[in-house]
Amino acid sequence: KFRFSPVSVVSLLKEKTRKHDMKKLIHSIKVGVALVIVSLLYLLDPLYGQVGDNNAMWAIMTVVVIFEFYAGATLSKGLNRGIGTVLGGGLGYLIAIFSQEFGGVGNSIIVGICVFIFGGAATYTRLIPSIKRTYDYGAMIFILTFSLVAVSGFREDQNVMDITRERLVMIVLGFVICICTSLFVFPIWASDELHGSMVAKFEKLASSFEGCLEEHFRLDGKDNEEIQPISPFRICIEVLHSKSKDESLINFARWEPWHGKFGLSYPWKQYQKIGDVLRELTVLILSLKVGLKSSAQDSMALRHPYKQPCEAIGSSLAWTIRELGDSIKEMRRCQSEAFIVPKLKSARQELSRVVSISKLEKVEDADILKIASSV
Amino acid sequence: KFRFSPVSVVSLLKEKTRKHDMKKLIHSIKVGVALVIVSLLYLLDPLYGQVGDNNAMWAIMTVVVIFEFYAGATLSKGLNRGIGTVLGGGLGYLIAIFSQEFGGVGNSIIVGICVFIFGGAATYTRLIPSIKRTYDYGAMIFILTFSLVAVSGFREDQNVMDITRERLVMIVLGFVICICTSLFVFPIWASDELHGSMVAKFEKLASSFEGCLEEHFRLDGKDNEEIQPISPFRICIEVLHSKSKDESLINFARWEPWHGKFGLSYPWKQYQKIGDVLRELTVLILSLKVGLKSSAQDSMALRHPYKQPCEAIGSSLAWTIRELGDSIKEMRRCQSEAFIVPKLKSARQELSRVVSISKLEKVEDADILKIASSV
Repeated sequence: KFRFSPVSVVSLLKEKTRKHDMKKLIHSIKVGVALVIVSLLYLLDPLYGQVGDNNAMWAIMTVVVIFEFYAGATLSKGLNRGIGTVLGGGLGYLIAIFSQEFGGVGNSIIVGICVFIFGGAATYTRLIPSIKRTYDYGAMIFILTFSLVAVSGFREDQNVMDITRERLVMIVLGFVICICTSLFVFPIWASDELHGSMVAKFEKLASSFEGCLEEHFRLDGKDNEEIQPISPFRICIEVLHSKSKDESLINFARWEPWHGKFGLSYPWKQYQKIGDVLRELTVLILSLKVGLKSSAQDSMALRHPYKQPCEAIGSSLAWTIRELGDSIKEMRRCQSEAFIVPKLKSARQELSRVVSISKLEKVEDADILKIASSV
Repeated sequence: KFRFSPVSVVSLLKEKTRKHDMKKLIHSIKVGVALVIVSLLYLLDPLYGQVGDNNAMWAIMTVVVIFEFYAGATLSKGLNRGIGTVLGGGLGYLIAIFSQEFGGVGNSIIVGICVFIFGGAATYTRLIPSIKRTYDYGAMIFILTFSLVAVSGFREDQNVMDITRERLVMIVLGFVICICTSLFVFPIWASDELHGSMVAKFEKLASSFEGCLEEHFRLDGKDNEEIQPISPFRICIEVLHSKSKDESLINFARWEPWHGKFGLSYPWKQYQKIGDVLRELTVLILSLKVGLKSSAQDSMALRHPYKQPCEAIGSSLAWTIRELGDSIKEMRRCQSEAFIVPKLKSARQELSRVVSISKLEKVEDADILKIASSV
């Protein structure tokens, strides 16, 4: 009945690592291809004649800078770069035109003051957490383009508007090359990664929950934790520390267009909540583990009468966690009313007969249930 | 005796926020100043005559891109940029010279293949976690400079070496401006932030530990958690999720030069260990909280006999945590042998008389002790 097997978790992790390495290789090849394509601007005579050296540089720079591992990250950086360039270039152009009204020293002073004010203000917005999360790169490009255009406009004899337009065309070209190689050839979706890691978390928690109970009730009573390659404790800590990784994946996934099973307005925000609830559940499992350990000096005889009911409750809770994970994996509505709620209720009744620390578990499960069924 | 006061924690947090906002403002002003200084390359005629438009651009770009919030981050990005430019430029130069041996189409093909191979390989190294942590930006700049120099060398009539050298000079110039404004005028040190947040964690944990016990033994037995602005639970979860922030701060702090009380080879790595131990301790405190909650239905009469000894043990443990935090704050050797160990021993003896779930606490404290005294 008990399905705890650290070996299976490890093999799962290994396979994941292998797949991830494969993805890294694919990503590297794709970046190489994109670089070669954008280099054609220099390498092919007719193209080079049209764009010229100063501009082709911007296309290469764009490809190098915005090509990220996940498709969503590339898209987000590219759009940020585009918007930042347009806004910065436009504002810089206005400042350049305006400052030319004053000649000589006045011109310099006005440009200097504007660079200080807009540069400082944009830097300040970069430090606001909500903006930093999504538009950090755009704000940086805004500062860069604004400064460059404003001070170049002070110098260039040719029209500032022309420079800005040409650079923008090159940036768009680089962006298009990135998007084509990133989204249309073996795309690496942050959404797949996020979805998979969330489902895996359910499995991990169920395993380590079972592992805790099994360890407690093991008949020989020996502590053979060293044999297990990854202890349930480590797995739980891993899940606990996954918050920042989840957040960045959610941030990327939101930029990704409709693909595979994920629709256009897929509720990525819900993943954040599920992740938070899972982390709270992890804390409870860890508490259970600590609680069980502290009662480990109770003799086996004392523990034995609880074994049967606890195992029954434990397996039904683990089954619930797995079921919730599966329902998210396959994106079907969780059969909450039909199966899980009665199962949890019977577990609760069972528990009220057996005094146990794992009582609070159910409250949490009900929480997950709420969220899972709203997905 | 019990010093739990959520209010004091909140006011501490508020003051911290205010200070942090002040720092943000200072940072923004500093960026503005650095931008104005670097703009002088354009705005002052004699300077502009010397460097020219194409090169001055690189100085501005460097300032915008590498000026980060923490001094250590700026230093790390600047050095990364310098090294990446030198390596990428050097290699690109070699490839450009080498490919010129073959004329015409052969030249293009060789440059293309090299861009693909080196670009792809460098991208792959960027995905290796240990390199990503410290040298991600350097690798990106390597790819950028390498591609630009290799393909420009294919075109430029003037010497590639000259371009590379001039750009490098501009980058160094931008770097120097950043370092001067970042390190010498109101520096914002990642090390201070890290040190402060680590010390604050001890205080937070001690408070929430006391909070747990106090709540459990409160005489009226009512749950007035809503009155507390920040519940101990939230504080603990905050500490649990601080891992990634700690890691980036440690990463920046390691780049920062000798300043204030921090010596040259200050053991920043130890902060990682202390943080990990503190997070484990947090899990234990949370377990205690859950454990106490699950026994909350015991009547007050049942709980009362334990109150005295538990409070004594609790306050001595909280004192220990605070003492450890203070010793790190003031960087003195913890008086472990003299004070803490006997105190913990007596607490353990006390505990062995009172059956309690908080038994495991001491093991952890001993762990912290080991690390704290090694700092």
